Amino acid sequence: MKVTFTDGKEITVVEGESLYEAFKRQEVYITASCGGKGTCGKCRIRIIDGDYSCRSYGKLSREERDGGIVLACQSYASGDLVVDIPVESRLSVGDKIAISRSKDLVELLRSYNAEISPLVTRTTLRLPPPTIDDNISDLERLKRELDATGLDLRYSKEFVSRMVDDLRRFDWNVNLGYQEDSSEALFLEPAEPAGTRYGIAVDIGTTTVVLYLVDMTDGHVVDVASTYNSQMRYGDDVITRIVHATEGGGLDDLRKAVTTDINDLITPILKRHGLEAGQIESVVISGNTTMIQLFWGFNPSYIREEPYIPAANSFPVWKASETGIRIGGNTPVYTVPCVASYVGGDIVSGVIATKMHRSPEISLFMDIGTNGEIVIGNDEWMMTVACSAGPCFEGSGIKHGMRATEGAIESIRIDPETLETSIEVIGESRPLGICGSGMIDAVSEMFLRGILDQRGKFVRETGGPRIREGEDGLEFVIHHDAKGDIVLTQVDVENIMRAKAAVYAGVSLLLKEVGFTFDMIEKVYIAGGFGNYLNVERAILIGMLPDIPEDRFHFMGNTSVAGAYLCLLSRQMREEAEDVASRMTYIELSVKGGFMDEFMSALFLPHTDIEQFPTVKAKLPDR
Amino acid sequence: MKVTFTDGKEITVVEGESLYEAFKRQEVYITASCGGKGTCGKCRIRIIDGDYSCRSYGKLSREERDGGIVLACQSYASGDLVVDIPVESRLSVGDKIAISRSKDLVELLRSYNAEISPLVTRTTLRLPPPTIDDNISDLERLKRELDATGLDLRYSKEFVSRMVDDLRRFDWNVNLGYQEDSSEALFLEPAEPAGTRYGIAVDIGTTTVVLYLVDMTDGHVVDVASTYNSQMRYGDDVITRIVHATEGGGLDDLRKAVTTDINDLITPILKRHGLEAGQIESVVISGNTTMIQLFWGFNPSYIREEPYIPAANSFPVWKASETGIRIGGNTPVYTVPCVASYVGGDIVSGVIATKMHRSPEISLFMDIGTNGEIVIGNDEWMMTVACSAGPCFEGSGIKHGMRATEGAIESIRIDPETLETSIEVIGESRPLGICGSGMIDAVSEMFLRGILDQRGKFVRETGGPRIREGEDGLEFVIHHDAKGDIVLTQVDVENIMRAKAAVYAGVSLLLKEVGFTFDMIEKVYIAGGFGNYLNVERAILIGMLPDIPEDRFHFMGNTSVAGAYLCLLSRQMREEAEDVASRMTYIELSVKGGFMDEFMSALFLPHTDIEQFPTVKAKLPDR
Repeated sequence: MKVTFTDGKEITVVEGESLYEAFKRQEVYITASCGGKGTCGKCRIRIIDGDYSCRSYGKLSREERDGGIVLACQSYASGDLVVDIPVESRLSVGDKIAISRSKDLVELLRSYNAEISPLVTRTTLRLPPPTIDDNISDLERLKRELDATGLDLRYSKEFVSRMVDDLRRFDWNVNLGYQEDSSEALFLEPAEPAGTRYGIAVDIGTTTVVLYLVDMTDGHVVDVASTYNSQMRYGDDVITRIVHATEGGGLDDLRKAVTTDINDLITPILKRHGLEAGQIESVVISGNTTMIQLFWGFNPSYIREEPYIPAANSFPVWKASETGIRIGGNTPVYTVPCVASYVGGDIVSGVIATKMHRSPEISLFMDIGTNGEIVIGNDEWMMTVACSAGPCFEGSGIKHGMRATEGAIESIRIDPETLETSIEVIGESRPLGICGSGMIDAVSEMFLRGILDQRGKFVRETGGPRIREGEDGLEFVIHHDAKGDIVLTQVDVENIMRAKAAVYAGVSLLLKEVGFTFDMIEKVYIAGGFGNYLNVERAILIGMLPDIPEDRFHFMGNTSVAGAYLCLLSRQMREEAEDVASRMTYIELSVKGGFMDEFMSALFLPHTDIEQFPTVKAKLPDR
Repeated sequence: MKVTFTDGKEITVVEGESLYEAFKRQEVYITASCGGKGTCGKCRIRIIDGDYSCRSYGKLSREERDGGIVLACQSYASGDLVVDIPVESRLSVGDKIAISRSKDLVELLRSYNAEISPLVTRTTLRLPPPTIDDNISDLERLKRELDATGLDLRYSKEFVSRMVDDLRRFDWNVNLGYQEDSSEALFLEPAEPAGTRYGIAVDIGTTTVVLYLVDMTDGHVVDVASTYNSQMRYGDDVITRIVHATEGGGLDDLRKAVTTDINDLITPILKRHGLEAGQIESVVISGNTTMIQLFWGFNPSYIREEPYIPAANSFPVWKASETGIRIGGNTPVYTVPCVASYVGGDIVSGVIATKMHRSPEISLFMDIGTNGEIVIGNDEWMMTVACSAGPCFEGSGIKHGMRATEGAIESIRIDPETLETSIEVIGESRPLGICGSGMIDAVSEMFLRGILDQRGKFVRETGGPRIREGEDGLEFVIHHDAKGDIVLTQVDVENIMRAKAAVYAGVSLLLKEVGFTFDMIEKVYIAGGFGNYLNVERAILIGMLPDIPEDRFHFMGNTSVAGAYLCLLSRQMREEAEDVASRMTYIELSVKGGFMDEFMSALFLPHTDIEQFPTVKAKLPDR
């Protein structure tokens, strides 16, 4: 059977295969954070024509079902189909905002005075061709020439295997590419190579996977792609996934899920730019400690059990062939080092992206993802804690939540008189969902307008025309749309409350631990997938961020991929990452105690102790 | 369908599968140098009962066919069968003679004063278990302990992957096994490991593959197994195989053929001793340069074309996982270094097995296999040449030829009066065929008795009762047997003549090249798969060996596997092998010229120039 898309592309689908499976098999990538189990509801498509059956509709509304919307993973063709993939279900490739912001990265690298020194180094060799009087073997010929340069390399079987033909193909004038840390010869290419070489920087988040394609000659970000981490089918947080790996014997499921995600991002991005996989010369991976252990296929069980031990925090440079990533097998893969079981390479990346480790000022770094990690310190010392925030700010577990890509509502105002909303949408396109910064905006506005009470409960009486009873209880309509309203439900608000409370509790405890008060912090760096910006005032208003002057806050975006980018391009940055990782002191909150108390106190708007939020107190009407 | 063997063992066979394939699938190994193409005639079995069909009978005699003998690779069951596998068709495992001779190897190793220092070194680590105050990662814990010993190792992904569970399983008291040359960590085992560790020494010959299972604690050879190199299906000599690899795109066929042979030897030998593949801790491979390139999967094309260049002569220690050998993937595999395209690691092995490189006396080393390689020199210099002898001395291309294993006729006398034969058989068992030393004996005796003339042609008139017209022309019955006579045919004799002529031509040319005469040679070491011994007098008589006093000759057996054995057990021997390989000067006969003249002159019994063989001249009756 045939599926024709509205853009004219055609694929086939066979009996018994879900549309999601058929798409994937033929390189039509759509989002599905549950990996095709029918639970996340992200793989919505619209069937325009043809016969089909659906195993389930998940949480699709009657309205959506009537409009031909189905879940691709639950739908089976009974004949030829015409299908439309809505923008919000598409894998995000070529996000304009992310690409435009990536220009800052080139600046950041420059500000370090770091020269471009990738994982792969090249040296040019002009070898005398063999003769009957100089008939040493190819490998000995190569080594003889290298001896002059003082290089003593290791040679893999694959290298030698390709070398025989490469030397002759390139007429004995070659560039030898090698990996300096592991002293390993990687490849031969012509002495005057054609075409640009690229690198890939990847942030493996618990909820999302973000990939930058980088031009290794000048460091500019060529493209950006992101998707949900399909390990989500095995659980929303790292603990559930560790349990799945340990008790369910599912370590390899998890490993494969994330490498498949990375491959699903690489394939379209290479296609889009007309590149071959062989043009990718190196990869850097950044992520939290559990994500990294899972990526490499290491048993993560002992991360979960006291005294919380990962297999490794610092990783040798290994090879793509050992990862399942479908690029040249010999391609080196560097892992940004981790600090401890709950503070990973994503945080080390964050620190080098903020440069706080080089400044004498006391800075606070907060990375708000599915886990919230917080670092305090300066160029002399750094302390760090971690807490579990949940995936809601990344769009997961929120009815109309989405990543901060085109179509996401990132800003919301509620008119104090009419209680009507006005919104701003990333890419100024049709609104498709709400991203993290939109959620914070929405909750703070609803709280200010009395639509939510201090406990985060909808107040029907004061809620105005946009509050209504929905399928999941009370909900607030952020945006009316003929194709389906975008709402925030009571359940959504509860998830957001828990996330913000966890973050604030973590910060409070860390400051107590080091004996600092909030006013002693000179800079606060916020990282996370919030999109264009995070409205600090609003984040303070809901009690997520501490109540200190706004000008001390700096919103950094995804610093995990930024750190991966820096390490991809510069040896100095890799050394700096290793240094930062070894210098950070990790405080295990679970053994310190007190986290639950702090968390419960923060489960209010803004906080049970309003005195911690004097500026918020001033803004609140007497109620 | 079911096949029952005379020893009671049962296997199944499915429709359309040859008996050979069914045997192999169920680990019943039989010899087949052509790899199941029906051409070598080695896989004879006797069908005692049941219905079957044969696609071809190859060169089986009427007599054999009538006795129920078929070729397993050409036979298909039509129902249940009862089958007998004759001894001569069995893969040779546990050859008593080879094992008994291997005792000399322990002596040889001892004579070098080389202590046992395998490819794998162990160090014992007693790690403090992690606590909440000492919660570094497992890998960092291991490294911290190793730092004290000054060891700086590389860690593969596989190592780290297994480390997590191993450390806990062995309660933090472990032996770390590592490979010193590559500084790579290989495995963890309990600090007091149970069970012996074994190593494997392999000689990959053009015609045969020989494998020694060695106890790594004391160096004794536990068992020996050998088979034909099934690359033979692609050609008898290295050149034909290179052509197949290059033009036929068959490099991977050849690589797989020989790794399959090695696996076919490992499986039964491990079974016989109740060992697990994981108990094999290291492997050493020795063979001629082409065999080694093919084993590692390197394009051998340029070995064949002037200026004759292999990919490599000296090889890093790589891993079993890169070879296809089915033992622990991390097991290090060392390759005895080669000298040039036509003088390989088998010859370097030979030199260290003879110790000629340590003696001031001028010695000659001759390895007579499918290729004949000759080395002359002493502790100061060594020169070497190679020539192609053909596989006949290893039993291939000779009607009743076989390897020098149990059942091979290794000695033949022909009564001068009656022209009746008396034979000696390896293992004193029923004669099954003729091995290389038997062939030399037979030709020399037939020549002495006038059954063969100087050109190696049968003289029917003087041939006596044992000469007869056979299926391939005239033949001489070496042994009468109700189950099938053992004969030497005119074609066989021509093959033997060509082989001996090539060897003698090579030696003559090498001596000319270095300006030596035969009487200046103080020791001659002969290597090759001749079995128990080589009758030097007879070899001189047919003009294969130079006519110098017999007491200067020393028969060494398979020195290629002996060298592999030495390198398996001792770092000193590996270093010595590398040194010998780099010190040998290779002379390329093909560019020197003169070989064809020498060869044609030697294509007589003993030689066209009888003056080179004064003792032979004295023995010959006036004819």
